Amino acid sequence: MKKSYWIYNRGDYEIYHTNLVNSRRQEFGVDYPVVWRVYPVEPKVDFHADITVEKDTTFTLHLNGTGYVFVDFEEKEFSDGAMLDVAALEAPLSRRYRPGVPVPLTKGEHHLRICCLNLESLPAAYIEGELVATDGSFYTLDEKGERIPVGYSEMHDSPEKRPTEFIFSYERMLPVAKEKRGEGTLFDFGKELYGYLYLKNVSEGDKIHVSYGESREEALDIKHSIVWEDVEGQSEYKLRPRAFRYIYILGTKAPRVEADYEYLPLPYRGDFKCDDESVNRIYEMCRYTLHINTREILTEAIKRDRWLWGGDSYQAFRFNTYLFHDKDIVRRTLIGMRGKDPVTEHINTIADYSLYFILGTLEYYEDYGDTDFIRFIYDRCHTLMEFCASREDGEGFFVKKYADWIFVDWADIDKDGPVCAEQMLYIAALRAMAKMAALIGRDGKEYEKKAERLTALVNEKFYRPALGAYVSSFTSGKEQVTRHANIFAILYGIADKAQTEAIIQNVLENDRIPAITTPFFGGFELDAMARIGRTDLVEHRIRTYYKGMLDLGATTVWEEYNPAFSGAKHYEMYNNKYGKSLCHAWGASPIYLLGRYFLGVRPTSTAYETFEVKPCLGGFGFIEGTVPVGDGEVRIFLSKERLTVTATKEGGTLLHGGKAIPLPKNETVEIKL
Amino acid sequence: MKKSYWIYNRGDYEIYHTNLVNSRRQEFGVDYPVVWRVYPVEPKVDFHADITVEKDTTFTLHLNGTGYVFVDFEEKEFSDGAMLDVAALEAPLSRRYRPGVPVPLTKGEHHLRICCLNLESLPAAYIEGELVATDGSFYTLDEKGERIPVGYSEMHDSPEKRPTEFIFSYERMLPVAKEKRGEGTLFDFGKELYGYLYLKNVSEGDKIHVSYGESREEALDIKHSIVWEDVEGQSEYKLRPRAFRYIYILGTKAPRVEADYEYLPLPYRGDFKCDDESVNRIYEMCRYTLHINTREILTEAIKRDRWLWGGDSYQAFRFNTYLFHDKDIVRRTLIGMRGKDPVTEHINTIADYSLYFILGTLEYYEDYGDTDFIRFIYDRCHTLMEFCASREDGEGFFVKKYADWIFVDWADIDKDGPVCAEQMLYIAALRAMAKMAALIGRDGKEYEKKAERLTALVNEKFYRPALGAYVSSFTSGKEQVTRHANIFAILYGIADKAQTEAIIQNVLENDRIPAITTPFFGGFELDAMARIGRTDLVEHRIRTYYKGMLDLGATTVWEEYNPAFSGAKHYEMYNNKYGKSLCHAWGASPIYLLGRYFLGVRPTSTAYETFEVKPCLGGFGFIEGTVPVGDGEVRIFLSKERLTVTATKEGGTLLHGGKAIPLPKNETVEIKL
Repeated sequence: MKKSYWIYNRGDYEIYHTNLVNSRRQEFGVDYPVVWRVYPVEPKVDFHADITVEKDTTFTLHLNGTGYVFVDFEEKEFSDGAMLDVAALEAPLSRRYRPGVPVPLTKGEHHLRICCLNLESLPAAYIEGELVATDGSFYTLDEKGERIPVGYSEMHDSPEKRPTEFIFSYERMLPVAKEKRGEGTLFDFGKELYGYLYLKNVSEGDKIHVSYGESREEALDIKHSIVWEDVEGQSEYKLRPRAFRYIYILGTKAPRVEADYEYLPLPYRGDFKCDDESVNRIYEMCRYTLHINTREILTEAIKRDRWLWGGDSYQAFRFNTYLFHDKDIVRRTLIGMRGKDPVTEHINTIADYSLYFILGTLEYYEDYGDTDFIRFIYDRCHTLMEFCASREDGEGFFVKKYADWIFVDWADIDKDGPVCAEQMLYIAALRAMAKMAALIGRDGKEYEKKAERLTALVNEKFYRPALGAYVSSFTSGKEQVTRHANIFAILYGIADKAQTEAIIQNVLENDRIPAITTPFFGGFELDAMARIGRTDLVEHRIRTYYKGMLDLGATTVWEEYNPAFSGAKHYEMYNNKYGKSLCHAWGASPIYLLGRYFLGVRPTSTAYETFEVKPCLGGFGFIEGTVPVGDGEVRIFLSKERLTVTATKEGGTLLHGGKAIPLPKNETVEIKL
Repeated sequence: MKKSYWIYNRGDYEIYHTNLVNSRRQEFGVDYPVVWRVYPVEPKVDFHADITVEKDTTFTLHLNGTGYVFVDFEEKEFSDGAMLDVAALEAPLSRRYRPGVPVPLTKGEHHLRICCLNLESLPAAYIEGELVATDGSFYTLDEKGERIPVGYSEMHDSPEKRPTEFIFSYERMLPVAKEKRGEGTLFDFGKELYGYLYLKNVSEGDKIHVSYGESREEALDIKHSIVWEDVEGQSEYKLRPRAFRYIYILGTKAPRVEADYEYLPLPYRGDFKCDDESVNRIYEMCRYTLHINTREILTEAIKRDRWLWGGDSYQAFRFNTYLFHDKDIVRRTLIGMRGKDPVTEHINTIADYSLYFILGTLEYYEDYGDTDFIRFIYDRCHTLMEFCASREDGEGFFVKKYADWIFVDWADIDKDGPVCAEQMLYIAALRAMAKMAALIGRDGKEYEKKAERLTALVNEKFYRPALGAYVSSFTSGKEQVTRHANIFAILYGIADKAQTEAIIQNVLENDRIPAITTPFFGGFELDAMARIGRTDLVEHRIRTYYKGMLDLGATTVWEEYNPAFSGAKHYEMYNNKYGKSLCHAWGASPIYLLGRYFLGVRPTSTAYETFEVKPCLGGFGFIEGTVPVGDGEVRIFLSKERLTVTATKEGGTLLHGGKAIPLPKNETVEIKL
């Protein structure tokens, strides 16, 4: 049998699974689908292939949907010249075959056209045959008759492994502690997990209340716990996948619980260790947080919503680069995040999140060199940017219209009129579009011009030489300075050298400017800090702020953490006592920060064709670890006495003591210090 | 209980059912979905309503999908100002309710927001309550926050009558004849019908082949019959709905068959009778043909495809006006035909069919005065016309690009370069757009200008004064003259008076110009003939051409009829022995022609607010009948001796003997002749 895969309309698999993920949220027993627009997949797809078989053969079609395979439709014209459709109308009865029957094929060249309709899920096709198979050589035709290669995944490589069922791995987990509390029993699985909960040793007559908690408090607080289920009538239950660490059960005497942890078996290609055990545990916590949220797509809030949020996953993309280095998860997430045309609202309805999508797409290219994907997604980037252009005001500032949500961060930001941070992101997105256009031979001049014009305008209207900072708004007159826009000014190269110096002094290193409280924006902040050489502040933040969560018993990174809070107050958010996500990938930035600025590895050309290694010991006694670079790795050890670097891939340069030392593949460079 | 209906995103019900209809075709045992693009419905919808209840009350939500109802979400802004979404995020746990639980509501004003997601079918909501109900007062919000009233149908007015199940009526039918033929049994139901076939008095061990036929020949020709099914394992069967007159059964000894004829119980509001029994039977055949194809939408080829074809149903719209006068079927058909945005291909991939959609939409307005619908559909008309504009060549002619299909008719038409008939339709569509724009206060000037410009260009490039006719193509040099473009030139007012006279003489009344062979284009031709006063030709065509089908045993109108053929050759089309549809609504034009030009009733203002009655006896001994006019009817009797006209509605004028005689409501005007 020839190796075969389920094929589908490129991009629709990702959108299909994103929709499923976005549909599964439940709160207080109520289904709670996403609040933004859901784009459906194309219900009808025609797959084509031009094949040659070396001898007479047969094959069998499988469809996820209804339809047929048409062998050798004639490309001759009817009286009117509509080739494809007329061929279908004209089909002699012997050449359209239904699924499940052997389709004969004579030796030689053939054209196959598979038509599949599915009004309920994802139209897809699979061919089983000795000489014929469905794979990347199949294509669909766009409206201009141009060939678009089909989508397929190596995960779905047999008739049974349909692309509608995403394939995960499972690990049986048992609680590490059990405790009688009031009328019920509390179980602790030791750390947060996501998966199926099994409920055993119960009676059919028991009316059971199962309360889930990321925290002990939440599980026990049955009035306010967000996720729960009432069951009765069975002597054993397998409950739908949910996230939890604690389970509190009422209504049955001596329940037993087990769980199947559901996860994607991605290897940890990145690693970090140092002499500070807390930092090692923080790295471990970040890694696990990212892993648990790395699923069909990069989700957030594994307990609460598991929705696909554009800004959150934009952060997570770079963590992935330094941990799994898995391009597929990024690609799936980008496609699912973007959806389809026409664009009628921002991604997640959030203006900034539309722009992160654009930035994330370019960064995906930079990390993995996937030009083919840029070619596929470019038009969707373009239509999204056209939508963004509809959000420009008379001066060309990117502003809120209708129900747009200008987020930036959970922070007190003056959002009167054009918001500075949004303009920064818009400039960065415009520049990214120009770069992507250039990559695939499209015309991106308009983007470039617009970015230049807006950069000048932003510096004119938002920058205050007297304050040495950008203000949030020039409309309100409040002249508010927050870290956000100023961090973006550095990260996206909008501030010039002098402005950057001023910002460092007046904003970044100025304690009177309110601190960032979300790990989300903290990721941007620390990135900016590290870029200006303040890795000491990064280290400090990890050793204090992140350690704060650890000390409170966190096994995963929280959505927000305010050291000033205490007790269960930590868990409150969005008007709900346990509304805060305690497992939020957007906060796992130490993975990236430690890999990029301490182990010191970064690409210097697309897809790590070349890369530099510039380790930084900071205040650590030693650091050691691995950073994935394309299909290779760099292993680094650094202490006060010794630096060793091994790259398993060409293209590396070690920067040390003012020298650039080439890193030959698979050779260890050792420097005594 | 307050009267309540299932509500859904306006237009999606029609698209949902169109998709189902378009998905049910089977040929030779193979599923055969439409060959054009299928537009999915919006999977997630938020329904809003502002209500006042006079006392404390409760209500219960039903959803087709998952979601909740949110009572009184606060419109206050979060820190960022995204009202709708943030309200959802902020929801206190007590105000989001799941389906099936009583939702309490205090006396006074409330806002309800129902969120419904359905990734598999049609998201819809139904509220059951003493004081609260879902109806046309609910709305969705478009991307600018403007309110769009929801869609709902009076058909779906209880929790059980979900909008995913279209509701039909049924009549039990028994075969009128039975005959042993070879190894099997042939049943004749006397006329074509559509519905469920019951197979009885068979054994579980029987391997039964059921062959369906519109013709006797087809049912018996088991090798070539298009629709069949093999069944075994049961002692009784209810087979999926299909169309047939004849059933041939093999593999069982003494089968019995029955059928449930499935139809829409629309009253025949129009009627026609005369002294020629054949014409009466032709009218009856046309009426039945239209009826059987009047379902969720106006389909064609009830046996073969039941697909929604834009041109075919455009013809059928006017037949409906003179028979059922049912606006709903037209509206459903137009919405289903058009689909959604972005437009990437013509309706049915046929260039002319896109234009018929535009014409049909304006004519719908003219017949029923539904401005609200024009307001709803206008943007979809506009985006379709933008797509058509992408099909203009350098000179502005509407041409074939990529996989477009230039159909016009099943006839030998010179389609080299711009095709004259297409330009005529394009001009008519441009003018229709200008009219619709004016109706709802939109700017249609560009359409008007383009129509004017193209009219001049068409007359310059296609009209041949020497021939007194338009040629099909000016590119090929063949100077071919067919009836098609010349008929359109008259129907759509593109030819001036002198050109019209020339066309009548040189084309319409010229026997050397090849005859029209499809009832489809015959409808246009006869309409044009009647308009120029040649009702004699209309009468002749009905008494000969239509009678020809009748004499061959037709119980419904055929897709195409060529009197020159004989025997089973009549049934052949599209390379299939029984490929021709013998029940094709596009040929039922006598309903329209007899009503409009013999009974002589036509609207003189929108929605028959005023109408004229100008009966024409032609060669008949007498004619009598009824024509629906808005919510009233006109009843007419005309013989050589006497004319009586009764209108049950104001606004009528009888034109007779050069005089205009007002028709008072419910009074019979009688004229002795």
